[in-house]
Amino acid sequence: MIDLGMKKIPYGGDWNPEQWEREIWDQDIEMFKEAGIDLLTINVFAWTRLQPSEETYDFSLLDEMLALLKANGMLACMATSTAAHPAWMATKYPDILRVDFQGRKRKYGDRHNSCPSSPTYRHFAPRLAEELAKRYKDEDTIALWHVSNEYTGICYCENCEKSFRAWLKNRYQTLDALNQAWNTTFWSQTLTDWDEIVVPNQLTVQWAERGMCQQGLVLDYTRFNSDNHLECYTLEHEAIRKHIPDAVITTNLMGAYKQYNYRDWAKKMDVVSWDCYPSPTQPYSHTSLIHDLMRGIKDGQPFLLMEQTPSQTNWQPYNWVKRPGQMRLGSYQAVAHGADSVLFFQMRQSVGACEKFHGAVIDHTGRNDTRVFREVAALGAELQKLGPDLIGSTLDSEVALWFDWDSWWASENSAGPSVDLHYMNQVSRYYSAFNRAGIQVDVVGPGSDLSKYRLLVTPVMYLLHPEDVEAVTSFVQNGGTLVSSFLTGVADASDRVFRGGAPGPLREVFGLWSEEIDALPPGQKNSIVMQADLGGLSGTYECNLLFDLLRLGGAEVLATYGSDFYAGHPALTRNLYGKGTAYYVATSPEEAFLQGLVHHLCQEAHLKPVLENLPTGVEATRRSKGGRDFLFLLNHNAAEVEVNLGSRSLQNLLNDQHLSGTLTLKPRDVIVAEEVPVLA
Amino acid sequence: MIDLGMKKIPYGGDWNPEQWEREIWDQDIEMFKEAGIDLLTINVFAWTRLQPSEETYDFSLLDEMLALLKANGMLACMATSTAAHPAWMATKYPDILRVDFQGRKRKYGDRHNSCPSSPTYRHFAPRLAEELAKRYKDEDTIALWHVSNEYTGICYCENCEKSFRAWLKNRYQTLDALNQAWNTTFWSQTLTDWDEIVVPNQLTVQWAERGMCQQGLVLDYTRFNSDNHLECYTLEHEAIRKHIPDAVITTNLMGAYKQYNYRDWAKKMDVVSWDCYPSPTQPYSHTSLIHDLMRGIKDGQPFLLMEQTPSQTNWQPYNWVKRPGQMRLGSYQAVAHGADSVLFFQMRQSVGACEKFHGAVIDHTGRNDTRVFREVAALGAELQKLGPDLIGSTLDSEVALWFDWDSWWASENSAGPSVDLHYMNQVSRYYSAFNRAGIQVDVVGPGSDLSKYRLLVTPVMYLLHPEDVEAVTSFVQNGGTLVSSFLTGVADASDRVFRGGAPGPLREVFGLWSEEIDALPPGQKNSIVMQADLGGLSGTYECNLLFDLLRLGGAEVLATYGSDFYAGHPALTRNLYGKGTAYYVATSPEEAFLQGLVHHLCQEAHLKPVLENLPTGVEATRRSKGGRDFLFLLNHNAAEVEVNLGSRSLQNLLNDQHLSGTLTLKPRDVIVAEEVPVLA
Amino acid sequence: MIDLGMKKIPYGGDWNPEQWEREIWDQDIEMFKEAGIDLLTINVFAWTRLQPSEETYDFSLLDEMLALLKANGMLACMATSTAAHPAWMATKYPDILRVDFQGRKRKYGDRHNSCPSSPTYRHFAPRLAEELAKRYKDEDTIALWHVSNEYTGICYCENCEKSFRAWLKNRYQTLDALNQAWNTTFWSQTLTDWDEIVVPNQLTVQWAERGMCQQGLVLDYTRFNSDNHLECYTLEHEAIRKHIPDAVITTNLMGAYKQYNYRDWAKKMDVVSWDCYPSPTQPYSHTSLIHDLMRGIKDGQPFLLMEQTPSQTNWQPYNWVKRPGQMRLGSYQAVAHGADSVLFFQMRQSVGACEKFHGAVIDHTGRNDTRVFREVAALGAELQKLGPDLIGSTLDSEVALWFDWDSWWASENSAGPSVDLHYMNQVSRYYSAFNRAGIQVDVVGPGSDLSKYRLLVTPVMYLLHPEDVEAVTSFVQNGGTLVSSFLTGVADASDRVFRGGAPGPLREVFGLWSEEIDALPPGQKNSIVMQADLGGLSGTYECNLLFDLLRLGGAEVLATYGSDFYAGHPALTRNLYGKGTAYYVATSPEEAFLQGLVHHLCQEAHLKPVLENLPTGVEATRRSKGGRDFLFLLNHNAAEVEVNLGSRSLQNLLNDQHLSGTLTLKPRDVIVAEEVPVLA
Repeated sequence: MIDLGMKKIPYGGDWNPEQWEREIWDQDIEMFKEAGIDLLTINVFAWTRLQPSEETYDFSLLDEMLALLKANGMLACMATSTAAHPAWMATKYPDILRVDFQGRKRKYGDRHNSCPSSPTYRHFAPRLAEELAKRYKDEDTIALWHVSNEYTGICYCENCEKSFRAWLKNRYQTLDALNQAWNTTFWSQTLTDWDEIVVPNQLTVQWAERGMCQQGLVLDYTRFNSDNHLECYTLEHEAIRKHIPDAVITTNLMGAYKQYNYRDWAKKMDVVSWDCYPSPTQPYSHTSLIHDLMRGIKDGQPFLLMEQTPSQTNWQPYNWVKRPGQMRLGSYQAVAHGADSVLFFQMRQSVGACEKFHGAVIDHTGRNDTRVFREVAALGAELQKLGPDLIGSTLDSEVALWFDWDSWWASENSAGPSVDLHYMNQVSRYYSAFNRAGIQVDVVGPGSDLSKYRLLVTPVMYLLHPEDVEAVTSFVQNGGTLVSSFLTGVADASDRVFRGGAPGPLREVFGLWSEEIDALPPGQKNSIVMQADLGGLSGTYECNLLFDLLRLGGAEVLATYGSDFYAGHPALTRNLYGKGTAYYVATSPEEAFLQGLVHHLCQEAHLKPVLENLPTGVEATRRSKGGRDFLFLLNHNAAEVEVNLGSRSLQNLLNDQHLSGTLTLKPRDVIVAEEVPVLA
Repeated sequence: MIDLGMKKIPYGGDWNPEQWEREIWDQDIEMFKEAGIDLLTINVFAWTRLQPSEETYDFSLLDEMLALLKANGMLACMATSTAAHPAWMATKYPDILRVDFQGRKRKYGDRHNSCPSSPTYRHFAPRLAEELAKRYKDEDTIALWHVSNEYTGICYCENCEKSFRAWLKNRYQTLDALNQAWNTTFWSQTLTDWDEIVVPNQLTVQWAERGMCQQGLVLDYTRFNSDNHLECYTLEHEAIRKHIPDAVITTNLMGAYKQYNYRDWAKKMDVVSWDCYPSPTQPYSHTSLIHDLMRGIKDGQPFLLMEQTPSQTNWQPYNWVKRPGQMRLGSYQAVAHGADSVLFFQMRQSVGACEKFHGAVIDHTGRNDTRVFREVAALGAELQKLGPDLIGSTLDSEVALWFDWDSWWASENSAGPSVDLHYMNQVSRYYSAFNRAGIQVDVVGPGSDLSKYRLLVTPVMYLLHPEDVEAVTSFVQNGGTLVSSFLTGVADASDRVFRGGAPGPLREVFGLWSEEIDALPPGQKNSIVMQADLGGLSGTYECNLLFDLLRLGGAEVLATYGSDFYAGHPALTRNLYGKGTAYYVATSPEEAFLQGLVHHLCQEAHLKPVLENLPTGVEATRRSKGGRDFLFLLNHNAAEVEVNLGSRSLQNLLNDQHLSGTLTLKPRDVIVAEEVPVLA
Repeated sequence: MIDLGMKKIPYGGDWNPEQWEREIWDQDIEMFKEAGIDLLTINVFAWTRLQPSEETYDFSLLDEMLALLKANGMLACMATSTAAHPAWMATKYPDILRVDFQGRKRKYGDRHNSCPSSPTYRHFAPRLAEELAKRYKDEDTIALWHVSNEYTGICYCENCEKSFRAWLKNRYQTLDALNQAWNTTFWSQTLTDWDEIVVPNQLTVQWAERGMCQQGLVLDYTRFNSDNHLECYTLEHEAIRKHIPDAVITTNLMGAYKQYNYRDWAKKMDVVSWDCYPSPTQPYSHTSLIHDLMRGIKDGQPFLLMEQTPSQTNWQPYNWVKRPGQMRLGSYQAVAHGADSVLFFQMRQSVGACEKFHGAVIDHTGRNDTRVFREVAALGAELQKLGPDLIGSTLDSEVALWFDWDSWWASENSAGPSVDLHYMNQVSRYYSAFNRAGIQVDVVGPGSDLSKYRLLVTPVMYLLHPEDVEAVTSFVQNGGTLVSSFLTGVADASDRVFRGGAPGPLREVFGLWSEEIDALPPGQKNSIVMQADLGGLSGTYECNLLFDLLRLGGAEVLATYGSDFYAGHPALTRNLYGKGTAYYVATSPEEAFLQGLVHHLCQEAHLKPVLENLPTGVEATRRSKGGRDFLFLLNHNAAEVEVNLGSRSLQNLLNDQHLSGTLTLKPRDVIVAEEVPVLA
């Protein structure tokens, strides 16, 4: 557990006083106090001001900000300002500019614009971090360090090409090994020299974002690019650590961001933090999944909610304002899933450039009587009331949900079988069913300890490393229940299909193999006909997308397809393996099927929900610390609902009321309560 | 009033005899006579023929054309041929080639292909204009001069980048002023040297046509690009003027063309002319708006209809032929709104290349018995019958509609709040309601004299120059009625949001401020519930797109929202300010609301329509000259309608009939009549 | 007739043992035997292995493959491996890399990646073919030679630009002739030097795939590009022929591939072969049309089905598996239309890279008990049973359908009249009506002998060479019946519109001319109202897309439009010309109209279907050889149908049963039978 030295859940967010004259700073501080704000992220985009020329550093404005915060008892999250390089640097050292997917060298402009292989960037960015660390190493106003900002994107320049070749040499040692991994005999793409390796963009092997002709190359470049940016992060991390051994260092991740393998990143971060911007049409359970993912990549450790908008974004097609209560609900949703902070982007709305229409705690009117400010202030008061109890508390789960960037990348790199296969979407559908049932889920992946779980769910576990095979097999062998879907066990770590067919080395575990996989357009459906009543799972369900045509090798058929030439073929199977059980879902079923399946699995594996009989749209989670259990009830409905607490007895932490029996939750209302012993 | 020396409304259009052998020229002339054609635009695309090499000019063919026209009593509109440079020039001087939005240097091909900053273009184009002026300065066959053709597009080359920097130095004087205007502290994009300034394309700050990350830069580049092309026009204009002091010089504009600020252009043009190509699905009122815009940019002066197709275009997805009567209707629609000419593109259809399927007076058959030719000839006869009476007559209006390219650019540059915000669309919706009611409208903008109007309508008046604030405020102060909408008064001349929130410096005038603005997807609607019956405006109306959440500061609430969390919040307000009144429409209402609002405003401000109780689809306008009033009735319906003239008495100018009482207008028929005193 | 030296229809396809270790080869051979496979296409993509460096050739693996085939009595189709150049070649000789439509020089990657003008490619590719021919000239295991693979695409590099200029000099001799052909006076694009000619891509005259501003240039570049790739083919063809005078040489075409004029290509090919990958939603009749096209470009000579998938593809959005029986049905459909082989891509599914999810005879499981393998083996047995009888047999037809790449290119190059005009689609609609009626059709084009046909159908015969005019005119003059549609006879060989209007030089033949052509959006329809009952054609039909407004010059009106301002104008006409008759269909009618028209034409021209009263979804064709007639009945329905043989008597070649009276065809079933004399 990371200690930021705070006595309560930190509250605040991005503050950019460099955009304003000095008297506005003071107005801001007054309003922060009014809203209970105590943690300000500063210095996110100020490189040019800090380093107006190659030789000059100027930290005077930053000194002033820190002094002001200190004087007012607030803490700082100190960013390193390296997410957008200065214009002068681009003009003087063009190697810092990226080459894009279309093969075009960029000129100056935009943020996240630095090439991760650029010698210039790798020289100046860590040096800036180091200058900051040296200057502020004794500054106890700084609660944590924030390297760069939302690392994003891919570069395809010649420097990256060279670094990629070095990365490959390190990975494969010999060209023969590389040729084999990439199966280059196909289309005679055999490499005879390391210098023949190219970056995979529209000038080489990709004709579209999801259209490519050398899967192995693309997969490795994606890995390399993630590693390459991570190295940039690490250089800054080390530069800070060198001068501040106990600094808490993070960078703000972006949730389910496809381009970088955050599980690798988390290893180098002292605490995970992320920026949460759900679109208005996204199911709330998907947001919960991503919170759990952010918790999961650091093995359950609480994370920081580094950014959310107090009201509206500006970059979506239609930028809804958050409805009354929605910001509060989203904030507690984060905390309910393991967040130890509630932070916003941004404190004061900028007057010009790209994000001038992005919501802020203090908007263009500068007033404290706006709806948004009043909601922010009300939440601030609640967080003060809550105090330190929740900080560091963790979530226990008996269910593990497998999520692996490698499977994400490889399953969507493939040409075929269906353009509508979206890895994230499949994972999210399974997650949603557990969330709906009030079952807490840990998101796991390669390297996770699976021994503590009773149930492991691995939708579209397309790519298997040998360690994954071992882990999953042992899990079932030792009595665990495994549930997986079509496109599991398709390919090895280089995206070469396993000989013998899917699910590859897990064929024994599932007791079957996939003979064919049919792919149909969205309108075309089939059905799953249950062959037995599994308790919660009976009758007929719709399915679509992909349809495994399975051949059995020991598994029992629980359901079959209802139509087409494979009517009667298995659609759901169960196999006893070792002391455990493995289910295989051959197609993409409708929601009701997954809910039924979860219901059945709960009964079979004796999984306990946080709360039974949750109404639709209500989420329940439990955080625990030092023997105390904290229950969250989140009403995502825009209407009132009744929640039955059963035999539970709760102490509402927001108003000290005792709760039992049946509660009425107002629209978008939240209960944060401690479980107390029931008097018999 | 510009005098082209013609005794009637000029009739004709683009004629390209250089594409044909000599005997075709004679056939053309005979058919022109048959059709009453008397003005031919020549020399539009002939640069290579006029200047086959750097050293050689050859005007022999042009001499021949002019001689032929003179011999047949026809006049010429003399173009300068500079809208497409010769292939040899591109090969020899590549600086004349543009760089596109994607950053690619173009090679030879297409028209409108010259870089406006190119030293080569700026040398050769005005020189050609001057050579033409010198040669033909005494040629009285030339009625007017036509510089280049449909100036179009943007260039992003290094020469433009350099010119842009010079333009910025001139505008801002210091880098500090520039940094402040562009708010470059955001994302630390501060410039430390003028040479760090880049052109805004896909290699720098724009990731799509409407996606950009430095609004100030993009806005200024758009202004610069408009100015830069205008300079090219001006160079030619001056080259001609130097030799022909009394030449009437124009270039053909393209109506509501977003890229150039035509209000600036009009100042340099002796007469405005434009090319009218409405799509078949465009409401006719939108075409009327653009006619009024073309009249408005030159403060009400009549304009020339320089091009329209006699039948079909070739560049739309589906190129309908104009239905019988439609070409005539469209021609009179232009005249009804202030056009002093009826000209076509083109006289004879080309046999090859890009526009071979574009309609023409004489088509590929070369016959004079086609439907199209017969309609052209019939209209020619009518224009002869009409004679000179209408020429120079003007339209009087009590209603001014604000249209400003700066607001167009800035409101659509923004990231947020809604991608569906289209400035032109909002303006057009208000215009349509007035047009429907038979109310004549002047289109005004920055610098216009507002004192003569009773009503000023300013939809989405997003960007306010200080002079605009002054003008609008005085207008209301002095008793005028102002109507505006959401997104008014958002930003200053550099697209920096006004502190204190919208409507910025007009908050007092409207007696309110906007706390939030909600943006919803197309399907999601709200309603406007009238709180009082305003006469024509009562009950409930649909609205969508954007929803201002207003806070009142003196304004009266006339209507409220019907649903969502802001049900009951103001949706329509009225504020008394000085001697005047200011209405604010907080959302985008359905058509019926705007029609009701116009009805109410007419009553309140005692505005008189050209004709009361116009049937749907019938337009009425009035042009006046020397005490005479000319009434136009245009039936845009494909069916017959009855029009009640009330107490008016008219003399039909096309057939000398007297009109009174109730008229029957045939499908797509037109009445052009003089108002005559009613005998009591 | 080409003799591949086989005693039965060859069966097999692409085999890539170079991707596998040696023991897999042996497994493959065993499974080939099990499936009756006897012809293997090898060496398609192996250039790098064959030539690992500039100086080295290594054929050892190929020797081994051939030895294995020989030992097992199988034959080889020997490819030349030149469809993807080695990586080392791209690195060393970048002239081999293409420049794309956007003007970007490509780097290494993908197949079909060589510039056809590249001196490097033109040196190394034929040299490799020659090395192969020299080495294997006496190898009787090689049944045929297969140059490169699926020639594809266009290059826009400077070498192509230079070759294009030379091609143009050869075609036009003088710049004057070129300027005239391209009508360059339009927009003053006159060329004054050959070096001013540019390739037509996005940097020059094309702003989109179907948007261009110099039709003549684009048309000629398309021709040049086809010729240029054909030259590459020819160089290899000649290199092989030089050493093996009797080699049978082909390359695999791609059916209705727009970029290359396959009619020209066929002249250089000893036998036409093609790759058949119908999308699941494509009407089966369209596939039949393409089979007939492939037969037609070689004047009726049987062709080879070089590739089809045994099950699913991987490159479509949704890659359905072929339903049981569908692969067999598609195989016989090819044979029914003239194929003399049944070959697959591919024998064994690759484990990695682009096509790892493309179906194969032996899939990733490597098993012989899969549904797909069992269907392949069953068909193998049938082909053995069929023996050699069908090989070399031909199809007789009384109906010719005109298909010309020039008309395809030019009609779709045009800006206007409608973006929905698709040449192929119009041709396919007419074809479908004949196919539905059981009428065999030959696809013909420029240079075809038309004298043997009674009916000639020429939909959208947009571009007319003088020889075409002569051929069509003579055809009608001599008693033939001609049917054509709108957009016939529009332009000459340079896409210059015929003066006098469409149908240009065929006006006399049709007895009419087109005054206008209306183009309406998809939703907007008109109707065709028959003025007489033509037998099968009566009443009213829907039509859309384009609407010729015709003026008569002798033709008789058979039907008129039902609505719009051209209601009552001719929609279908008939003209007697010489001894023949010419029909003109002025618009795009619904299917029922075309079926009625075909019915009427059959009666009028006494055309005999292969079988009368075919049920919907059943196709019938007849191949003949040496006085024997072979009948194919193909049930494309997923349901059983009854087929009435009338008085015919058949001998089923697949099971030796005698057939007469009414047959029941199972879902997707096929009858291959010989007609036998009926005993009276």
